[in-house]
Amino acid sequence: MSEIYKRTHMCGELRLADEGKEVILNGWVAKQRSLGSLVFVDLRDKTGITQITFNEDIPEELMEAAKSLRSEFSVGIKGIVHERSAKNDHISTGEIEVFATDMVIYSSAETPPIYIRDDDNVDESLRLKYRYLDLRKNKMQRNLLFRHKVTKCARDYFDENGFVEVETPMLIKSTPEGARDYLVPSRVKNGAFYALPQSPQMFKQLLMVAGTDRYFQIVKCFRDEDLRADRQPEFTQIDLEMSYVDQEDVIAMQEGFLKKLMKDLKGMDIETPFPRLTWTEAMERYGSDKPDTRFGIELVLLNDLVQNCDFAVFTGALENGGDVRGICVPGGAAQYSRKKIDKLTEEAKHYGAKGLVWIKKENGEYNSSVKKFFTEEQLAEIMDRLGAEDGDVAFIVSDRKKVVFDTLGWLRRKIADQMGMLDDNQFNFLWVVDFPMFEEDDEGNIKAMHHPFTQPKLDELDKLDGNILDLKADAYDIVLNGVELGGGSVRIHDKELQAKMFHVLGLSDEECREKFGFLIDAFKYGAPPHAGLAYGLDRMVMLLLGEKSIREVIAFPKNQNAECLVSEAPGLVDEKQLEELGIQVVASENE
Amino acid sequence: MSEIYKRTHMCGELRLADEGKEVILNGWVAKQRSLGSLVFVDLRDKTGITQITFNEDIPEELMEAAKSLRSEFSVGIKGIVHERSAKNDHISTGEIEVFATDMVIYSSAETPPIYIRDDDNVDESLRLKYRYLDLRKNKMQRNLLFRHKVTKCARDYFDENGFVEVETPMLIKSTPEGARDYLVPSRVKNGAFYALPQSPQMFKQLLMVAGTDRYFQIVKCFRDEDLRADRQPEFTQIDLEMSYVDQEDVIAMQEGFLKKLMKDLKGMDIETPFPRLTWTEAMERYGSDKPDTRFGIELVLLNDLVQNCDFAVFTGALENGGDVRGICVPGGAAQYSRKKIDKLTEEAKHYGAKGLVWIKKENGEYNSSVKKFFTEEQLAEIMDRLGAEDGDVAFIVSDRKKVVFDTLGWLRRKIADQMGMLDDNQFNFLWVVDFPMFEEDDEGNIKAMHHPFTQPKLDELDKLDGNILDLKADAYDIVLNGVELGGGSVRIHDKELQAKMFHVLGLSDEECREKFGFLIDAFKYGAPPHAGLAYGLDRMVMLLLGEKSIREVIAFPKNQNAECLVSEAPGLVDEKQLEELGIQVVASENE
Repeated sequence: MSEIYKRTHMCGELRLADEGKEVILNGWVAKQRSLGSLVFVDLRDKTGITQITFNEDIPEELMEAAKSLRSEFSVGIKGIVHERSAKNDHISTGEIEVFATDMVIYSSAETPPIYIRDDDNVDESLRLKYRYLDLRKNKMQRNLLFRHKVTKCARDYFDENGFVEVETPMLIKSTPEGARDYLVPSRVKNGAFYALPQSPQMFKQLLMVAGTDRYFQIVKCFRDEDLRADRQPEFTQIDLEMSYVDQEDVIAMQEGFLKKLMKDLKGMDIETPFPRLTWTEAMERYGSDKPDTRFGIELVLLNDLVQNCDFAVFTGALENGGDVRGICVPGGAAQYSRKKIDKLTEEAKHYGAKGLVWIKKENGEYNSSVKKFFTEEQLAEIMDRLGAEDGDVAFIVSDRKKVVFDTLGWLRRKIADQMGMLDDNQFNFLWVVDFPMFEEDDEGNIKAMHHPFTQPKLDELDKLDGNILDLKADAYDIVLNGVELGGGSVRIHDKELQAKMFHVLGLSDEECREKFGFLIDAFKYGAPPHAGLAYGLDRMVMLLLGEKSIREVIAFPKNQNAECLVSEAPGLVDEKQLEELGIQVVASENE
Repeated sequence: MSEIYKRTHMCGELRLADEGKEVILNGWVAKQRSLGSLVFVDLRDKTGITQITFNEDIPEELMEAAKSLRSEFSVGIKGIVHERSAKNDHISTGEIEVFATDMVIYSSAETPPIYIRDDDNVDESLRLKYRYLDLRKNKMQRNLLFRHKVTKCARDYFDENGFVEVETPMLIKSTPEGARDYLVPSRVKNGAFYALPQSPQMFKQLLMVAGTDRYFQIVKCFRDEDLRADRQPEFTQIDLEMSYVDQEDVIAMQEGFLKKLMKDLKGMDIETPFPRLTWTEAMERYGSDKPDTRFGIELVLLNDLVQNCDFAVFTGALENGGDVRGICVPGGAAQYSRKKIDKLTEEAKHYGAKGLVWIKKENGEYNSSVKKFFTEEQLAEIMDRLGAEDGDVAFIVSDRKKVVFDTLGWLRRKIADQMGMLDDNQFNFLWVVDFPMFEEDDEGNIKAMHHPFTQPKLDELDKLDGNILDLKADAYDIVLNGVELGGGSVRIHDKELQAKMFHVLGLSDEECREKFGFLIDAFKYGAPPHAGLAYGLDRMVMLLLGEKSIREVIAFPKNQNAECLVSEAPGLVDEKQLEELGIQVVASENE
């Protein structure tokens, strides 16, 4: 068995200034090729590639070994740094090569099932199955390093600001609130279950009651939800909570963090304080509570212009309490053909819209999908309201407010993407504040929009006895480029107010006790005012790296079926394990 | 609802130099008492206590509020710092008091069920049930802060040394190896289960195959074992792994960390390199693979002295391949009465010992439990071998080697404790190296002592075909004061050698594939040499703080029944949740 070479340099480090040095490198064979009597090897580690040259001066045995090398062999190389005759600008070590004088082969390799190249766009399931090879790509190792630096930056910042990292438990009680829990059967107490935490919310509030004063934690959270879009069963939060603070204190603390993060990680100076939008303004201008402000295309209300028009869809929507709103796409008239608009209209159905009305102004003339219902003057009036100029196209949606917002909120971003208006290197942070305390679900039940511990605006408490949907909360989200980076709220610390909120939410005393009993108990013993926030770390890293999926910034992500393709989890277990847990598997359809 | 005071100081901060300052403090009422027309309040936060004085100069309303205060009310105080006439040396702020000028009561408190005092030795189950109050004790908040500093120190050190913190998955495949897994039923794939990781072992090895090169993580691990002794179902490891290193590299890296840790956290300069003991030496001298070297009382082999004696227990043990070993307790003859020895003998049975032989030398005479089998000369010879002087007592155990080591290993530490020889402020770090690769379990099956990925000593591989129990491994434990602080090994990176080890362990190809398939697959594609180590963070913090239980350094620990007494986990769940998971609870005895 071979000795282990103590490397002197990493594979991305050597420069012309190192010429003549005797060096030792460890890494993988990225490429091996023979050229006449020479053998060239590209040696790779996570920092880069160095060209190794085996020439006539070396012992025959070493040359034989060099010839035996294949891609992904793990080797150590001793050699001398030489200036390269044919320089390579594409790699950082392109000015030098290392003339090998000795080598150790740590292990050989079969032909890998995927290419170890950043631009290898192989099927993702293959990448996930062979993740240990996929992670050998420079980009993936850079992503992991970047993620490490983000967490280091967070830990340094919050430590400097007096936050204490406290670990909260992973095996907790299941509360049938919010998303679906992952359950863990108890062996000691058969028939009982732990849940994995969806967030450390209640424990971090207990820590405030306990006097920890400033808590933070970078922590795994779990939600057993269907993995549409870009979600993971286990994800990571930067979670924090502070005592004796209000919303402004929390926001200022976070702006300090995000400013440092952008400086340290991206070398960018971002301005604070960040812009703020109330929830109402965000919805009305952008159709979204996480608006992307890197481009315009804001929503415009058209109700007054169309209330007496001949188009029954518009007037019908207004009669049902809905809205008519539109957006204008500068220079979009030519780009948006009938066919392209039909495609958008089809997709808009996912957001509940029954149709998309369009108006184009081209060469001073108006054209529209609803031309026959409107006079030229009416179309001009609408387009003027939308700020349209010649060459623009406008899209109008009329429906329930929620449908109008959801559709246009999606549409403006979709169009911005299609028109190349989204710049990954522009970072628009903003706060959305003054969220409604409650919302109605589809069955008309009152629900807490954030969670039932969120403090309502204390000067609006009279609304609790009136139109409670108008009641706003001390809740705030931090938004980056159309993505919710994090969110939080001031928490209720007054047990009477908390009881009232539970009452409004229709929870009986018994349900309160069952679900939140220990927090209610804790609040009996002097709860300090407190507030907090949690960031989604995976998303944060993804956005800062300009990646399109959080799977690119997680070492071993699950696929859309919540499977780990590397280890083949979940899997079958021994009957004995289930017996000890006092459970059995029920035959079911999806087995 | 009240405004929130922006504090100027914490409650442990004010000094005489602050006299005359207008200050704002937030905290809890630790004590309130009236004295004539004055009201005194001890205001507490996690940093300490400040005396607040309400005197005649304040508005009547404020005085009324002051009189209404009770223990654990959460309040904010504005006031002026004054020199105290009767100083209090017991607290850091004892030279001053704050004359209150205004106050806000954030929330009132019922009489707490436990006292918020470090010296409140209430029943632990009550402490765990009201953990949010228990954690309000200064000592507990100090412990949490200390733990935070330990992890910060670890993260800084490993970051500086090029380690990348990578999160490994929490929902993994169950491998019926080692301890019992916690299982998590899959909803998407009914009948299949995830396991919570007992350690990230296989994933960190995959990261080495992936080229991460230096990995670390502070990570929750899970073992569903009975909680005898001081264990927790979920515990935390500082886990790390390095590529292209041998045992010496790992050890040097850890000594650097522990030196920094002791300097930063305890202000102590500890010497490196640490002492090393081979596993064999540790067992023979201390009867333990985690020896406490803060005191002597080493084991001494007596086989040659007793091989022909008349005491059949000794000679019988030798004939059966066992040993006769003893320890000498300096000055213990007077202290260890018959009664006390009987008690030790009783406890020794837990370690398999059928009896404890004792010999005392007092006033030049020998006395012993086995006096009638030995001449005075023989007793003297034994005592001389043990290094005994007048006034000493010796204890001798004869049995199978394992029983002899276990019993005397336990006994020497027990006696050291009883004789006050254990100094919590002395920190004896040492390495135990050269562990056996294999051990026999009680049924005589060959098992890997560490785990099957551990690399055997490469120059002893011929023993694989001979007496494999003699084969040593490149495995090492770091021990502090008789506790295993961490352990690790060089890993096998050669797929042929790995296959051979599995074969020796009696694993069929199919079992290998089922249990370790993905690691075996990964090793086909160029595995670099690698090695690593993991520390038990809970134990580390406990030892550095001089605490007796890891529960003192965990915010929300489980009790001996694996229950969280705060949140009452585990608990019952809705039938609907189980239906979705495709499992049902089986009626069982322990329900």
